[in-house]
Amino acid sequence: MQSALPQQVKIVEVGPRDGLQNEKETIPAEIKIALVDRLTAAGFANIEAASFVSPKWVPQMATSAEVMAGIARKPGVIYSVLTPNMKGFEAALAAGADEVVIFSSASEAFAQKNINCSIAESIARFAEVAAAAKLNNIRLRGSISCAFGCPYQGEVAPASVADVVKRLRDLGCDEIDIADTIGVGTALQVQHVMQLVAQDFPIASLSGHFHDTYGQALANIYASLEVGISIFHSSVAGLGGCPYAKGATGNVATEDVLFLLQGLGIQTGINLDAVVDAGQFISTHLGRKAVSRAGNALAAKRLG
Amino acid sequence: MQSALPQQVKIVEVGPRDGLQNEKETIPAEIKIALVDRLTAAGFANIEAASFVSPKWVPQMATSAEVMAGIARKPGVIYSVLTPNMKGFEAALAAGADEVVIFSSASEAFAQKNINCSIAESIARFAEVAAAAKLNNIRLRGSISCAFGCPYQGEVAPASVADVVKRLRDLGCDEIDIADTIGVGTALQVQHVMQLVAQDFPIASLSGHFHDTYGQALANIYASLEVGISIFHSSVAGLGGCPYAKGATGNVATEDVLFLLQGLGIQTGINLDAVVDAGQFISTHLGRKAVSRAGNALAAKRLG
Repeated sequence: MQSALPQQVKIVEVGPRDGLQNEKETIPAEIKIALVDRLTAAGFANIEAASFVSPKWVPQMATSAEVMAGIARKPGVIYSVLTPNMKGFEAALAAGADEVVIFSSASEAFAQKNINCSIAESIARFAEVAAAAKLNNIRLRGSISCAFGCPYQGEVAPASVADVVKRLRDLGCDEIDIADTIGVGTALQVQHVMQLVAQDFPIASLSGHFHDTYGQALANIYASLEVGISIFHSSVAGLGGCPYAKGATGNVATEDVLFLLQGLGIQTGINLDAVVDAGQFISTHLGRKAVSRAGNALAAKRLG
Repeated sequence: MQSALPQQVKIVEVGPRDGLQNEKETIPAEIKIALVDRLTAAGFANIEAASFVSPKWVPQMATSAEVMAGIARKPGVIYSVLTPNMKGFEAALAAGADEVVIFSSASEAFAQKNINCSIAESIARFAEVAAAAKLNNIRLRGSISCAFGCPYQGEVAPASVADVVKRLRDLGCDEIDIADTIGVGTALQVQHVMQLVAQDFPIASLSGHFHDTYGQALANIYASLEVGISIFHSSVAGLGGCPYAKGATGNVATEDVLFLLQGLGIQTGINLDAVVDAGQFISTHLGRKAVSRAGNALAAKRLG
């Protein structure tokens, strides 16, 4: 099986956006900027830095323009932002985003409950943003939530994921995320879905976004590597909980993913020690322990 | 790869012994008995219930005879106990243990530091216990710590693990555990070691004992399944910390392992809900949150 694993993996660090967006206490822009700058210095090639959504819906992201203006950009690094509509896109453009992210769900129940329309409609609404991104030479990423299970309808058919992949592909997405929003996917299911959607989209541009709610994220990443997936999302210090199970774990921790990839001999270009530092930095600010097993073990070892 | 996975897996629940042994507060025998009884009811075929070591060394295990006398045994279930010497073996025999566990390390540095002798000597010292177990028709299990890394010497050669496997096999062990005591192993390394030692011992009687210190346990279990390992150790509620990194995670949580196996369609005979209950029971007694992602997510879902 060794020969089948990719030699190189891109980690998309989502902590500053996906991780922090649900924090109740307002985090000052300078803290977010310091976090992004630490992540840039650690070597990430892609950082999800902000979200141009209405501050009414996500108050924590109200500082997004300030954050984008304040970070020290490294040439070649992709700073991504979430853009729910043209207003968000205009803001992203003004902020100099390298990539805009549009999103949908593989679950009809989730789409209806969250955006009060069908999956197909939700994607059609992004056509203008997609066209504007192309026109402005900005990378376009599409994110598909609930690809392995839904908090409202339970099971999600792999064919639904494939259908959404095709719709996002047709809008011109450069990269598509297959996301396990509630963390219920397991290894063989993940391999099955990834192999299915790879029939409709280049596998080199498919990413796995796993949550560790049921402890499965690392096994799912390893299983994804075995079928050729080479882009993964993760969140420093495991930032971001699970809105569907209070107190449960959300995004897989970047430190744990890097420990796995290092062990497998896969290149990422990222310095794990620097990521542990960034995780301790933001966890100290938030006044809690990092939700990363490798991060906490490595930090404990330093203390001796 | 699907066809290669075992259809059935035996989980050895180690919470009552390996999990609880380092707890500082004395846990009353009746609580331990209630825990073992809940685990029996949940359907485990093998429970590590006690340890007949000197109470000077492991005060928490001083109640072992009481625990073994108090549990409600289910026919067919193997109740295992740790026996460091003949005194321990006699006590295990008197207590009606179904299996005794002897142990060594794959790391010379670890053996020297912990028992002040070589690996070879440490195993030779178990010859009398092994012979007595055979004479009394009691199952004999051998446990090999530090099989994937050592807190003192760092790397451990796979050949050292194979050497210890052969020595334990020659003492008559019915089952041998390959244990990642400090949780540093990663998936390909685990497959390599498992495949190597399977050349010297029946793979059906080799078990994987993984710690989640760096978040790798589930990925390592999945990787082990792929090479045919079908026995795994785990600890309800993730009982048992890591003595080599304060505050870090130890034994992989049983709930997380069962969630994986259920998803893979592998039979265990164990009721996950009942295990979540047992985990909440002991965690409530210990006054802390369970260290199981699946356990906590499932418990949170019940509360709604």
